[in-house]
Amino acid sequence: MNGAEALARTLLACGVDTIFANPGTAEMHFVSALDRVEGLRCVLGLAETVVTGCADGYGRMTGKPAATLMHCGPGLSNGLASLHNAKRGFTPMVNIVGDQATYHRPLDAPLTADTEGLARTVSQWVRTTSVAANVAQDAAAAVQAANAPPGNIATLVLPADCAWNESSGPVAPLPAIARQGVSPEAVAVAAKALRSGASAMIMLSGAGLSEAGLIAAQRIAQATGAQLRAPTQVSRLARGRGRVSLDRLPYAVDAAVKVLADVKHLVLAGARVPVGFFAYPGKPGVLTAPGCETHVLARIEEDIVGALAALADALGAPKSPAIPVVARPEAKRGRFEPVAFGETFAALLPEDAYVFEDAVTSGRAIFPPTFGAAPHHWSHVTGGAIGFAFSAATGAAVAAGGRKVVCLQADGGGMYCLQALWTQAREKLDVVNIVFANRRYAILQGELAAVGAQPGPASNTLFSLADPEIRWTKLAEGMGVESVRVETLEAFADAFKAACAKKGPFLIEFAIG
Amino acid sequence: MNGAEALARTLLACGVDTIFANPGTAEMHFVSALDRVEGLRCVLGLAETVVTGCADGYGRMTGKPAATLMHCGPGLSNGLASLHNAKRGFTPMVNIVGDQATYHRPLDAPLTADTEGLARTVSQWVRTTSVAANVAQDAAAAVQAANAPPGNIATLVLPADCAWNESSGPVAPLPAIARQGVSPEAVAVAAKALRSGASAMIMLSGAGLSEAGLIAAQRIAQATGAQLRAPTQVSRLARGRGRVSLDRLPYAVDAAVKVLADVKHLVLAGARVPVGFFAYPGKPGVLTAPGCETHVLARIEEDIVGALAALADALGAPKSPAIPVVARPEAKRGRFEPVAFGETFAALLPEDAYVFEDAVTSGRAIFPPTFGAAPHHWSHVTGGAIGFAFSAATGAAVAAGGRKVVCLQADGGGMYCLQALWTQAREKLDVVNIVFANRRYAILQGELAAVGAQPGPASNTLFSLADPEIRWTKLAEGMGVESVRVETLEAFADAFKAACAKKGPFLIEFAIG
Repeated sequence: MNGAEALARTLLACGVDTIFANPGTAEMHFVSALDRVEGLRCVLGLAETVVTGCADGYGRMTGKPAATLMHCGPGLSNGLASLHNAKRGFTPMVNIVGDQATYHRPLDAPLTADTEGLARTVSQWVRTTSVAANVAQDAAAAVQAANAPPGNIATLVLPADCAWNESSGPVAPLPAIARQGVSPEAVAVAAKALRSGASAMIMLSGAGLSEAGLIAAQRIAQATGAQLRAPTQVSRLARGRGRVSLDRLPYAVDAAVKVLADVKHLVLAGARVPVGFFAYPGKPGVLTAPGCETHVLARIEEDIVGALAALADALGAPKSPAIPVVARPEAKRGRFEPVAFGETFAALLPEDAYVFEDAVTSGRAIFPPTFGAAPHHWSHVTGGAIGFAFSAATGAAVAAGGRKVVCLQADGGGMYCLQALWTQAREKLDVVNIVFANRRYAILQGELAAVGAQPGPASNTLFSLADPEIRWTKLAEGMGVESVRVETLEAFADAFKAACAKKGPFLIEFAIG
Repeated sequence: MNGAEALARTLLACGVDTIFANPGTAEMHFVSALDRVEGLRCVLGLAETVVTGCADGYGRMTGKPAATLMHCGPGLSNGLASLHNAKRGFTPMVNIVGDQATYHRPLDAPLTADTEGLARTVSQWVRTTSVAANVAQDAAAAVQAANAPPGNIATLVLPADCAWNESSGPVAPLPAIARQGVSPEAVAVAAKALRSGASAMIMLSGAGLSEAGLIAAQRIAQATGAQLRAPTQVSRLARGRGRVSLDRLPYAVDAAVKVLADVKHLVLAGARVPVGFFAYPGKPGVLTAPGCETHVLARIEEDIVGALAALADALGAPKSPAIPVVARPEAKRGRFEPVAFGETFAALLPEDAYVFEDAVTSGRAIFPPTFGAAPHHWSHVTGGAIGFAFSAATGAAVAAGGRKVVCLQADGGGMYCLQALWTQAREKLDVVNIVFANRRYAILQGELAAVGAQPGPASNTLFSLADPEIRWTKLAEGMGVESVRVETLEAFADAFKAACAKKGPFLIEFAIG
């Protein structure tokens, strides 16, 4: 059995059964091995940013790693932006990156690049297989690393000769690496802070955003009056009617500073100290107020839910907290307006849906009005690399098992990875894509104003997508996805209801402003 | 004057007057500066692979650097694949990559990444500006580096505070770095080899592929009987009726080995020793025959044309060599077939056109039948990162000044950078895009067969683009580019003639097989 087949069989033995791929020549032995190994589902993406974005969505949906298969150098390069989001979201993932044969690399053929250096910029774990005899062990180590808390990007670089040479066959999975347990000291420190009576906030991330994490946090909130918050971008948040309504920290620095202004104790449960996405002249980088004390209850790789529960117990909180009831909003009518859109969306969102949001300017106000939607999960573009939602929704839908996946995508970001629509059509995935077509990089118009500048010829050129108008229904049609363009909330509601009721992908272009 | 404006004015003073851009928040002060500086043309690309691909095409067309403007981390990541091609093609280019403010970087905000590490993988020159007072000097050094022979990728990382803080104003250009002169020893060694009477080949690259280089090489060929060849991929080759018909080394290892089998002396004029794109079991990596002696007449950064002329003089070659006349082929009829397509294309190609080819499987046989086309220039995907032609053609057309730019793009690669079509429409660029729609990664089917494997379920999934069919006319329409689909050579001829006769972009989808 050659190295490639040993690799494929080891991945499968380790529980990795889905591969998002865009292979090249150096990967042909691995592709040939996939032909011989039953049980691995291969999904083609037409550009690597789609491939890695799919794996990100799949990992967030399932909590387990998909594999990717990419080509050396430029192939991996095209996948880096989506990997950046996945790394920042702690998505488990195993990348297999084919590369020049070990003895061919010194010849510096045209596609030769610093594959390992590129991988290192977005991976917590990187290894280059040196001989075919090691490939199975390397693959098992990659899966182990990907699954290690909190979830990691593991990249295995596979020289072509390590794929085609004889191996010693597949290996069994390596033992799982357990989450670090609850720190009694951290619980005691947080309990003391929360008992002080001073204004407190608990910031949740990672497993703290699961239903169990939120219930434990709500117990604490009920017992102490502490506020609960999510970071600006969440990797995966359980929300909707019957769940804790957790708002997130605003993106804009001034608004975030205002939210944190009175917080004297900030307890971090999987989250990090909040900082601005960017620096702005004269504005703070760290967003907490001067004098705010920060207490790390649990780091992202630790047992966050256990720590929250231990803290709630230490505070004598009720076992079953009251969850405030949020009513389902009514669908609205008229032109697009973010809050009205959020209400309409909340009124119609199907039960147990998975929402991927990269709606940027149009999306900021959608979050609060959707607290009253049917129970669902929500994911943001955690690393800020736009063009996330089409791809991540596509990958999640591969594992959705009957759940609807909804993609909220700004038009500017959408043009980064529109190729994902083709994969949705190919795989007949249940994704409803909503494109917010404001025909400009509106966020940048805001950012230009934030630096005190007036728009001029260059910025008008660089921020406008209006000429020519991007016709999303044509783009969708070109890739085999049914679509409709709407201009009002009532037309959107009709289209969204119809799209949710049918199988397969659909795209709604919402023409805005 | 802040650092951003000093940067913009310095670029302009150094002769850089075109910027391909997709900015983000960290670049707002630079965008604002562009609003205040007249004479810099800003061209928006809807993904960074388009931005850098445009700059590659522009640099090949003009011989001078365009600037790019990209966002930190993931923004640059998306541009790396096209930069890889440009680096391998020795295209001059200046990348300005915005980044986190120096004092904000340690906070590790979500978009923070190893920007300099990413840049290093594709740049011959990288610098991160440390204070605003240095930015103008850094920009002048970047342009100097980009223009240094043979042409380099220079990447300047610009922290946001270096853009917004007060600077000391723009600076004048740094002196140009001259090409290294002709080595008399190298000329003498090559002359001796060519006088030996043993079978010889001169392999040309860089400036050796210019009209002057080819004439000098043809003088040598005529005097000695040496063969002339180009590498498999050329950065920019002058060709067509009245010019030397220079064939290239085949891509396939066996075919390349056959071409080189009898060559006893290989003289390199800007080219490197030919090696296979990839290793294959049992096949050689270096493609020259055992016993072949290699002689470096001029390295890529040296005076290649001067060295060829000196060699011709040393050999007593005629000053004006005979250039064999190649007749213009006749347009053909019927279904697509690569040679017939090449003949039809050659019959109709306008005078002085610039051809960018990333046609992969469909493109390999187009080269020889187009020797008899009207004089033109031809560029290949020098680094092997597919998805090159749409973007490079777009950037070249920005500087084409009335010349037609023709893009020969395979459908698989085309899906990597289809967003370039929107920029063509936005800028009303004279590009005729020809998409070879064979609806599969045919090259990979060949590569799988080359490793001795039979297609199976995985490879059939991963190599087919047929379901759903990609409808290029819809995609073009969605981005404002007029288009037509053809299925025969005569329909193609009609469409191509019409497209060449009008202004602005056009796309022809050639449905194949």
